[in-house]
Amino acid sequence: MGRARSARKTPRRAAAGKEKRITVVPIAWVRNSRMMPDDDRWGPIVSEIRLAVGVPSASLAGIEKFSHLDILYVFHKVRGDDTKFSARPRGNPGYPRMGIFAQRKKERPNGVGLSTVRLLAHRGRTIVVRYLDAIDGTPVIDIKPVLTEFLPKGRIRQPKWSHAIMKRYWNDASG
Amino acid sequence: MGRARSARKTPRRAAAGKEKRITVVPIAWVRNSRMMPDDDRWGPIVSEIRLAVGVPSASLAGIEKFSHLDILYVFHKVRGDDTKFSARPRGNPGYPRMGIFAQRKKERPNGVGLSTVRLLAHRGRTIVVRYLDAIDGTPVIDIKPVLTEFLPKGRIRQPKWSHAIMKRYWNDASG
Repeated sequence: MGRARSARKTPRRAAAGKEKRITVVPIAWVRNSRMMPDDDRWGPIVSEIRLAVGVPSASLAGIEKFSHLDILYVFHKVRGDDTKFSARPRGNPGYPRMGIFAQRKKERPNGVGLSTVRLLAHRGRTIVVRYLDAIDGTPVIDIKPVLTEFLPKGRIRQPKWSHAIMKRYWNDASG
Repeated sequence: MGRARSARKTPRRAAAGKEKRITVVPIAWVRNSRMMPDDDRWGPIVSEIRLAVGVPSASLAGIEKFSHLDILYVFHKVRGDDTKFSARPRGNPGYPRMGIFAQRKKERPNGVGLSTVRLLAHRGRTIVVRYLDAIDGTPVIDIKPVLTEFLPKGRIRQPKWSHAIMKRYWNDASG
């Protein structure tokens, strides 16, 4: 039977499916002291993540049993057309040209950020976290608990430039 | 000056901003041997992630310098209205009722999944990975390299039930 004539799934239908857009909505919002994006010194910043209107407080029930969380958020200050599919990290001519999916920079397709944070407190509709590298007003689209079973398996290898750009990422001003 | 009269940002405008919807599009697609969702035995499964039409192959340049990647994807088989904001993990009456943000189950607001995978190969527009717990045909919305500097800081704490449900998650059938 010719593939193109299959009534169950024609190539045309398959292609149409690949255009699919997915809509996400903020489930929470970041509140902290950092008003503008910055490449460095995120370590001392403590953030509140407050559930959005309409999201029940029960959705955080028991979260304090976990020490760490994955926070998915939107780089809301970045314009979609700022994406470069390949570039030298931080524009440094000493670094190799890398694809956007080999970097974590914020000018990226879909503009979603991911931080693994330490949970400091849970109070009603708010959690308090550290090591979130998102500015005040950032929309959060998901919160997931960190399970050791989902951590990277085996030894981690990464290029030297990626260590270099992280040197002052978490430090305070004296770092 | 009264806050309510400020022309720069009225409370009404701020509230309207909180309704904001964000649209994401697949940047790649998963190909593997698992056609239906399953709670267990993901370990042996090797997946291909192929860039979507229109995404340049340069966006993967240099990715092979990293051993591990974070893959953000959409639980495309789950209907949005299946979300329960709190539930017992896997419906087990022996486990405590937990909020959806204290679980990683797929029926969740925005329906975005996250796996940290091992990169096995990079060939043109395709990467080959292990430890991706997503089925064949899954839309991928981001790929990020794993940097040790972004791993959880400090000791990880998680409840007993979360270890219990992960017991056979990665194992093969004999596990």
